[in-house]
Amino acid sequence: MAKRPLILVTNDDGITAPGIRALIEVMLELGDVVVVAPDSPQSGMGHAITINSMLHLERVFIDNGKQKEYSCSGTPADCVKLAVKEILDRRPDLCVSGINHGSNSSINVIYSGTMSAALEAGIEGIPAIGFSLLDYNYNANFNASKKYVKNIAKNALENGIPKNVVLNVNFPNLPEKELKGIKICRQAKANWEEEFDKRQTPQGKDYYWLTGKFVNLDNGKDTDEWALENGYISVVPVQFDLTAHHAISNLNTWNFND
Amino acid sequence: MAKRPLILVTNDDGITAPGIRALIEVMLELGDVVVVAPDSPQSGMGHAITINSMLHLERVFIDNGKQKEYSCSGTPADCVKLAVKEILDRRPDLCVSGINHGSNSSINVIYSGTMSAALEAGIEGIPAIGFSLLDYNYNANFNASKKYVKNIAKNALENGIPKNVVLNVNFPNLPEKELKGIKICRQAKANWEEEFDKRQTPQGKDYYWLTGKFVNLDNGKDTDEWALENGYISVVPVQFDLTAHHAISNLNTWNFND
Repeated sequence: MAKRPLILVTNDDGITAPGIRALIEVMLELGDVVVVAPDSPQSGMGHAITINSMLHLERVFIDNGKQKEYSCSGTPADCVKLAVKEILDRRPDLCVSGINHGSNSSINVIYSGTMSAALEAGIEGIPAIGFSLLDYNYNANFNASKKYVKNIAKNALENGIPKNVVLNVNFPNLPEKELKGIKICRQAKANWEEEFDKRQTPQGKDYYWLTGKFVNLDNGKDTDEWALENGYISVVPVQFDLTAHHAISNLNTWNFND
Repeated sequence: MAKRPLILVTNDDGITAPGIRALIEVMLELGDVVVVAPDSPQSGMGHAITINSMLHLERVFIDNGKQKEYSCSGTPADCVKLAVKEILDRRPDLCVSGINHGSNSSINVIYSGTMSAALEAGIEGIPAIGFSLLDYNYNANFNASKKYVKNIAKNALENGIPKNVVLNVNFPNLPEKELKGIKICRQAKANWEEEFDKRQTPQGKDYYWLTGKFVNLDNGKDTDEWALENGYISVVPVQFDLTAHHAISNLNTWNFND
């Protein structure tokens, strides 16, 4: 029998979050699992890495599962880097991140710590998937997603993921019987319309809380937003070559000699 | 005579860094300048935003220039959001970020706070450019870049930047007479080979510093790395639709019905 796959698990909600517990449970059915995840919530961390501070890493025991677990003081991207260089004795066959408490669909991929961990693994040549559930609550119910998480991870292990591509998987917040299946999608054109909640300290100094409203500007039926609104699980292949190749010829018409 | 353009300036090295001072000086030749930049260095912050904490914003006076300046306790992306919603009385005609002390070429675009500010502006529909100089020193000399910064910004104001595209401009660390001009490029395939410097606290607990070596895996002469190594200023058009469109058909062959 072939060697069991080695699976690295991380997230951005912190190592004790219910979402990563659900993900570990599913991954233990597929392979040997090592968890390296932030010791505190890191939502909205984008692809931050820690270069002006040191990193702590600690072996931890959170439940009675067969996985090995380490908590890290850094960002999700730091966790992947530390795992690969300092913890794992061979390259993992798969890196999974999540299950995030909240959406990482469309433009959210840019701000997402969950996806930055997956992208970091992808940059290092490791097949990687980020999973997110459209429910921000700490007590979100991940049961409906488990079957699909397993199926997608199994496909990735068996088929590989196209080179230089990472998967961004989002689950609508629906009971299992209402889930219509998986759809491969493109990232919808959407953004956040920020609103700042301006307040004053007891000493009279202004400060702000960032809040906002998500606005989908894209009517396409091939987008992740459409899929999620219509009961499908969205899978977007994501790349880290950000070059807008189509814009190169336009820019070559600029006059740089003035 | 037409209204002077409104230019928003930010960075990730902090509002007092010499790089942003050089950028402000050039932008004052092109329009009215408002600066909203982090109150402390934010290098490596990727596209982080602040959602679990509040933001402070303060009017500051750093030199005798005509610009209006605000220092912000948040990330570069936060600075752009706050500027657009809370400070500026109209949409800026251009947002420029930098000049960064250090490279943001090739894969560094992913980790870059400088570029995340430019991308944030781009997401909000504002023409945006990130500038970086390949010199990490605090006392880096930005003089050679000024002429080109002005030229590129002027082109952007006059021609617009292609929709949903942001420019990533990097300068080789060379004296002006050795600069060969501007090249429109694609992002080179490169990555960092991390090395962790493992140490012990005085109490005997392990901790790590992230260090690493940049490895360019790409021999293409159309890449930013090639341009920079050969004395050119690299301009890469960057997009925030991360969809790997070419991978969609492959993923549609996966079997999700097991």
